[in-house]
Amino acid sequence: MPLRLDSREAGFEAAFRALVDDRRDSDADVSADVAKIIADVRARGDAAVAELTVRFDKVDLDAQGWEIPVAELDAALAGLAPDLRAALELAAVRIHDFHKRQRPSDNDATDAQGVRTGVRWSAVEAAGLYVPGGRAAYPSSVLMNAIPAVVAGVERLVMVTPTPGGAANPLVLAAARLAGISRVFRIGGAQAVAALALGTGRIPRVDVITGPGNAWVAEAKRQLYGIVGIDMIAGPSEVVIVSDGGSNPEWIAADLLAQAEHDPVAQSILITTSAAEADAVAAAVERQLETLATAVAARQSWDDYGAIIVIPDLEAALPLLDALAPEHAELMVDDPQALFARMRHAGSVFLGRHTPEAAGDYLAGPNHVLPTGRRARFASGLSVVDFMKRTTFLDCGAVGLAAIGPAGALLADAEGLAAHAASIRLRL
Amino acid sequence: MPLRLDSREAGFEAAFRALVDDRRDSDADVSADVAKIIADVRARGDAAVAELTVRFDKVDLDAQGWEIPVAELDAALAGLAPDLRAALELAAVRIHDFHKRQRPSDNDATDAQGVRTGVRWSAVEAAGLYVPGGRAAYPSSVLMNAIPAVVAGVERLVMVTPTPGGAANPLVLAAARLAGISRVFRIGGAQAVAALALGTGRIPRVDVITGPGNAWVAEAKRQLYGIVGIDMIAGPSEVVIVSDGGSNPEWIAADLLAQAEHDPVAQSILITTSAAEADAVAAAVERQLETLATAVAARQSWDDYGAIIVIPDLEAALPLLDALAPEHAELMVDDPQALFARMRHAGSVFLGRHTPEAAGDYLAGPNHVLPTGRRARFASGLSVVDFMKRTTFLDCGAVGLAAIGPAGALLADAEGLAAHAASIRLRL
Repeated sequence: MPLRLDSREAGFEAAFRALVDDRRDSDADVSADVAKIIADVRARGDAAVAELTVRFDKVDLDAQGWEIPVAELDAALAGLAPDLRAALELAAVRIHDFHKRQRPSDNDATDAQGVRTGVRWSAVEAAGLYVPGGRAAYPSSVLMNAIPAVVAGVERLVMVTPTPGGAANPLVLAAARLAGISRVFRIGGAQAVAALALGTGRIPRVDVITGPGNAWVAEAKRQLYGIVGIDMIAGPSEVVIVSDGGSNPEWIAADLLAQAEHDPVAQSILITTSAAEADAVAAAVERQLETLATAVAARQSWDDYGAIIVIPDLEAALPLLDALAPEHAELMVDDPQALFARMRHAGSVFLGRHTPEAAGDYLAGPNHVLPTGRRARFASGLSVVDFMKRTTFLDCGAVGLAAIGPAGALLADAEGLAAHAASIRLRL
Repeated sequence: MPLRLDSREAGFEAAFRALVDDRRDSDADVSADVAKIIADVRARGDAAVAELTVRFDKVDLDAQGWEIPVAELDAALAGLAPDLRAALELAAVRIHDFHKRQRPSDNDATDAQGVRTGVRWSAVEAAGLYVPGGRAAYPSSVLMNAIPAVVAGVERLVMVTPTPGGAANPLVLAAARLAGISRVFRIGGAQAVAALALGTGRIPRVDVITGPGNAWVAEAKRQLYGIVGIDMIAGPSEVVIVSDGGSNPEWIAADLLAQAEHDPVAQSILITTSAAEADAVAAAVERQLETLATAVAARQSWDDYGAIIVIPDLEAALPLLDALAPEHAELMVDDPQALFARMRHAGSVFLGRHTPEAAGDYLAGPNHVLPTGRRARFASGLSVVDFMKRTTFLDCGAVGLAAIGPAGALLADAEGLAAHAASIRLRL
């Protein structure tokens, strides 16, 4: 049974605070294991990667091949059913178009003192994309991670994916080919992240690593952060749906289950102004679960982490949304723009009754790699800029330095940095 | 003696590679100590912070006050010498003006299929600024960290700074007041970072923590990354100066020493097309060291980590610059713009002979918090966007969903996510 709350009832504040503070991330402390794996890859390179891959994935890289040949990627793409290929191509084009609009612009200006300053953006040289094996091996994730890197202008895009038993998901390979990835290595886990961050004989070092993974992958990224750039640490997925009582309960129920089916620790929350709608949605969820192919995970998520919150009016949704800072927020209300304008923290917002999150997951354009676990308070979804960096620049010239240099030298004196002061005064 | 290399000599490649790979970061493994401190602050809050502050800083917070009163900040500002106050105000205004230009813009567009997508930026609610005690307690760092947060629109800005023995640096307090910080707590170390990230009874929880610190502070930020946003992990500072043989050796020497005086593990590198200039600069460094007030640190840095590299022409500087990916690059050449246009990796670039790095450190405008230790390959200096986050949005409407929904449902089918597919098809 999902949690059911009413914001007008006694005890709501405490119950809601518990919901906000509830952490669904894994508590497994794998930091020592991961540190050992990273040290091993650092010391022994390919030999360590090969041994760990035998141990964890039962794959002998030297016998079965470290890399999946481009011909196999091409074959996977050629083997897609035509309608599925068209859908994947539509997704790739739309994601590309959206991300092109996120390319940052440089700036360059000279002020009244004659001092020229600005910012120039450039792409990183190489990016590594982690694609999990098993349940979370989604072609859509390949597109969502690779295309921003391509749009940024990254020259070398390397994918790693574990292939326990030796088989790779053909859909994932097709998506990789479509996205412009040419090198795919059959490795996974913390050892794959370490190999990409440090470089080994066979695995090229990259500058940024993105993509979802299990607790070992996430911890390896955290430990290697600073040696390599990484995307946000990702936790279980979540959606908050706000409805004004005028939405189709079957649509809401399907959207709640679309989140829940991802993972037993995913979280689906409905906030509605109507107790009758709350009841109807709860019943629709139960009805849809009866025939849902993914009912096992969805049922567990909904029962353990689902919640329905009844509020008196839409105004009351705002503080709840901002406290939850959800990865996904669906605003199924008459005037979604008005509500959106007043909320602050969310990874991505889905406006109106005809915008199911699933459309955004696949092909609307915005990225589906988004901050989870209340991190939208400070973090953003994956973007072109995650594969770029800024270089600032300054040109004082003799005139500009004459104008601002004396004040700079005074500040250097005050900080006791004599050579800083001298480096300015020598030029005045 | 600094390293001296000539790119035309045998063995240059290996010697240069060793220079690039040399890590100057502390090897001290403080991760276990820091994990204990974080766990303690999480479990016991203020009591843990108070005990750790007695232990590390010999300050009794309950007796001496947790917070530095605003009156003390005001007094520090009022007590500045007029010329120093004017310099600090000029710096604040210029930094503010530069960072205003970095405010990102939203976008919102509807495509031919009727699908509306876009990005909206917003500020985080609260930011914490770490200011070290001791050698690195610089008022300029307060301005460089606080002003981007103010420009971003952060409502609550909290500063923490250890006050071993009880005394705070008045210049730091004055800069805090000038920058718009109203709350300053007398705490430091990993416990201060943990208190800001987790919140305690007395210390308000923040969304982002920035600012330099020692190995404990850096490790605490790394361990708490994901619970809170952080700026880049910072290592020792560095400069690479490129000269074409036509620069004043005294100016170059002063700039090399301005970097070296920061820290015995700072790094100053000169790349020059002229062996005669190399000799003249080496001699000027020795001469300037004789009278430099900060000679002890500067001498150690220059002898241990300094380098002079002679190259045949400016073309040869490009691969060296990109491999070093320096925090600061000074281009003391006739046509600095031409060289800048072709280089790729640097935190900040200083163009021409009249642009000493020190001008940028204090008041030219660009931020002086920059990626070190070759991290400019993938990381950027501190900016307004470090205190903001993006929310993407999507509005399909019935028309847009009819256009793209069927392809989305097909992709959901292919990934085996039945509720995803249903959530789209129910609406078609």
